[in-house]
Order: sequence, then C-alpha cells, then structure tokens
Amino acid sequence: MSTGQLEDLHKYLLGIADNSLILGQRLGELCGHGPSLETDIALTNISLDLFGQVRSYFQYAAQIIADDKVTEDSLAFLRIEREYRNVLLVEQPNTDFGYTIARQFFFDAFHFLFLKELENSKDETLAAIAKKSIKEVSYHWRFSSDWIKRLGDGTQESHDRIQEAVNDLWMYTDELFHQTDADKEMIAQGIGVDTLAIKKSYYKMITEVLEEATLAIPESKYWHKGGKQGIHSEHMGYILSDMQYMQRTYPNMEW
Amino acid sequence: MSTGQLEDLHKYLLGIADNSLILGQRLGELCGHGPSLETDIALTNISLDLFGQVRSYFQYAAQIIADDKVTEDSLAFLRIEREYRNVLLVEQPNTDFGYTIARQFFFDAFHFLFLKELENSKDETLAAIAKKSIKEVSYHWRFSSDWIKRLGDGTQESHDRIQEAVNDLWMYTDELFHQTDADKEMIAQGIGVDTLAIKKSYYKMITEVLEEATLAIPESKYWHKGGKQGIHSEHMGYILSDMQYMQRTYPNMEW
Repeated sequence: MSTGQLEDLHKYLLGIADNSLILGQRLGELCGHGPSLETDIALTNISLDLFGQVRSYFQYAAQIIADDKVTEDSLAFLRIEREYRNVLLVEQPNTDFGYTIARQFFFDAFHFLFLKELENSKDETLAAIAKKSIKEVSYHWRFSSDWIKRLGDGTQESHDRIQEAVNDLWMYTDELFHQTDADKEMIAQGIGVDTLAIKKSYYKMITEVLEEATLAIPESKYWHKGGKQGIHSEHMGYILSDMQYMQRTYPNMEW
Repeated sequence: MSTGQLEDLHKYLLGIADNSLILGQRLGELCGHGPSLETDIALTNISLDLFGQVRSYFQYAAQIIADDKVTEDSLAFLRIEREYRNVLLVEQPNTDFGYTIARQFFFDAFHFLFLKELENSKDETLAAIAKKSIKEVSYHWRFSSDWIKRLGDGTQESHDRIQEAVNDLWMYTDELFHQTDADKEMIAQGIGVDTLAIKKSYYKMITEVLEEATLAIPESKYWHKGGKQGIHSEHMGYILSDMQYMQRTYPNMEW
C-alpha cells in the first residue's frame, strides 16, 4: 500500500475502535453501580469485550504507522478530543438503566451487522479481528435486545422510561452509517464495510425488537452528527478527563 | 523563620486555600446551570471570589518555598490527590440546589469566623489577605443563610429537600475544626487560628439560622474526616481529573 492508503487505513481503524473505546469507558463507569449483581457483571463484561477489541484495532493501527511514539496506549490515552472519531451515540451519558440499554441496543445492532460484513474484508488482519469479535457482539446484542423487550413489555414505568430513552437516542442512530473520506477509500478497496448497504437491515432489525417490546418507533428524521469528524458533544471532554487522567498525570506509566 | 517553620506555614496556607479552591471548582461546575439567572450569577461570583483568595494564599505559599518550580499554578493544578488538604465538606457533589446551599452555608459560617480571627494573625501577609477576604465572605454568608431560610421556611418540598441536605452534610462539619500538626504549630506561634476556640460560636451561628428556617438541628455525632490528612472521598479524583485536564494535557500552558 502507498503511504496515503496506509494513512486512510489507520484512520479507518481508529474510526471503528473509538466507538468501542468510548462505549467501553461509559460502561466502565457503571462497574459496581449496576441495578443488580448479574446486570452489573454483564455490563462490565461487555465493557471488557469492547476494550479487548479496541486493543486489536489499535495494535494494528500503531503497526502500520511509521512512528515509534504511536502505540496502542498513546492512541487510547493521548489524543486530544478532536482526534477521536467515535459517533455521538456512544458518548451519551448513562442517565439511567433505560438509557444504558437503549444506547447499547442501538449500537449492538449496528456493530453486529458491521462485523458480519467486515469478516469478508480483503484485509486479512481486519477480517480476523471481525471473526473473533462477532461472537462477543452477538452476545451483546442478545443481552441488550432481551432487555429492550423486558423493559418495554414490563411495567408501565419500565415501558415509559425505556420509550423515553429510545426516543431521545434515536437521533444518534443515523450517524452510524455516515462515511468519511477514509471510509469511502477503504470501501472502494474492498477493505471497509459499505455501511449504506446495511442501513436497511439495521432499521429492520431494531424495529422488529421494538415492536415485540410494544414500543413505538420514533418518527423523527432529525439526525445528530459530528463525532466521526471529531466534533463531539459536551460530554466528551469529561469522558476524556477521566479516561486520560492516569497517563496525563504519570506520563509513560505502565501497569 | 527556620526552614521547618516555613514548611509548616506553607502547609498551613495550602490547608486554608484548598478549601476555597475545591469549593470554587464545585461552584464553577454550576456556571450556566443555576436554577435562575440571578442565582447562577451569584454562585459563579462566589466561585470567583474564592479563586481570587486562593491566588493570594498560593502566591504567598510559593514565595516562601525555595523552589522555582512551585508556583501558584503548580500548586493549583499539579499536585496529586493525597497532597490536597481540603476538608471533605467542600468536595461533596452539587446534587441539587439544596445541597449546594447547605454545603455553602456550613462552609461560609466557618470561613467567616475563621477569617475574623485570622485578621489578628502575627503574620502580616495573612492578616492582610483575611482583611480583604472577609468582606466577600460576609456576603457569601448572607447569601447562603438567606437561602437556608427561604428554602426551610418555604414550601413543603423546599423544606424537605433542604432538611435532607442539612442532615446529609452535617457529618462533615466537625472536620472544619480539626487541627493538623502544622496547624498546631502555627497556632502556637500566633500565626494560625485556634479553630477549637471558634467551634462553639460556629454551632451557635448555624443553629440560629436553622431554627429561624424552621429546620431541625441534626443530632448525629457521627463525624466524617480525612481530607485534611489528604484522605479524600471518591468524588475528589473526578474533581481533579476535570480541574487538572488543561495543565496535564498541555504542560506549562499559560492563558
């Protein structure tokens, strides 16, 4: 590959990994604060799965850049806000268990469909990461979609609260399918996933679960975006302050 | 003064300043989030008053230590958690307007009585800072004690909520009067304030306001402490992550 192509691949890898990194960080905040022991452990396990996947992407991203200072740790902890490429959805706050589940549900459906395509990537490393990750992500999807049904088809209060979370987070779903220039380049090369091609399956997949959960499908077509261009919501700075504290305070520390 | 005495004075100054620093930071979080424009501006102004006082203490503290790397900025932004000497009261979260006011009220009464004595310090710099600060702090006290009365003697809901905040924060009041070894040394030299001598006035001062506000005086004698020894509550790490982010991320930056 040319240097330009490697840079696009590098950006592409960060785009995928940052979603899991920031969602993993959000879920990590709940460790010890879950509504029940089982749920607490499940959310923490999902967080760890995501961090594991992040490491694979970041190690590969560091390897293809000719700069010794770029490591999986520097990519995770030492970028500034504008350099993170995650979608706005994953940086939204935990708020309550309903929001946590709705955010997870919206992401897991995308993540699953995305990885299923990424398994066919012409880039063998990426295909291998996808193959390994999809087993974990199919479990995440089972967990979050089950909870959508339990909460939606549960008590009046659980129904109302999960409906509110679904309504509030709906506007962040469209950004999952946006394509940056690096994305388009990788798609053209048969390395990246054509997200537009999985969009229809995505809305079908989540709509079926929402209907089974007796929840209304939001009709709003007002979409929020910006994260994939590095333009984040006000929450992002606080996430990074917490997440980067150790590396910023004790530079080059290792566990 | 001997080096040992200067070190005690340095610690003493940090002990005073850190209370205002962390409370100022907490109030700063509310900037733009106050329940009304007037209150929002008042809380932000109190925050700025406190930061102004902090600068006076830190500049003095930096001046008496023979180390060029110690500046007002390094003292504010580059210490680690255990090196901050504020009481636990001021690091407690904003929670709601009731907690914000109760925390302020408990601190202001102490702060006012403390500065009134500090005006008589044998250390002329300290006496001058106290003389300048007490005008601001008497306004803070008027603001917070007025709100205690308005909320306590207001609606049933405002009464219940401020009572809950008073009850919850009560356990942090005793630590205001604790004396570290450096405190005792400064008291012995006529530089520091003998906090035990103002404790009775303090509880009289707050009790009168609470009674006028139709609030019950908590009876608990179970006190929390640790901050003055650097042992903080779980909130402190998050405060420092936010507060130190700029200096940690862009070392030596200046505005």
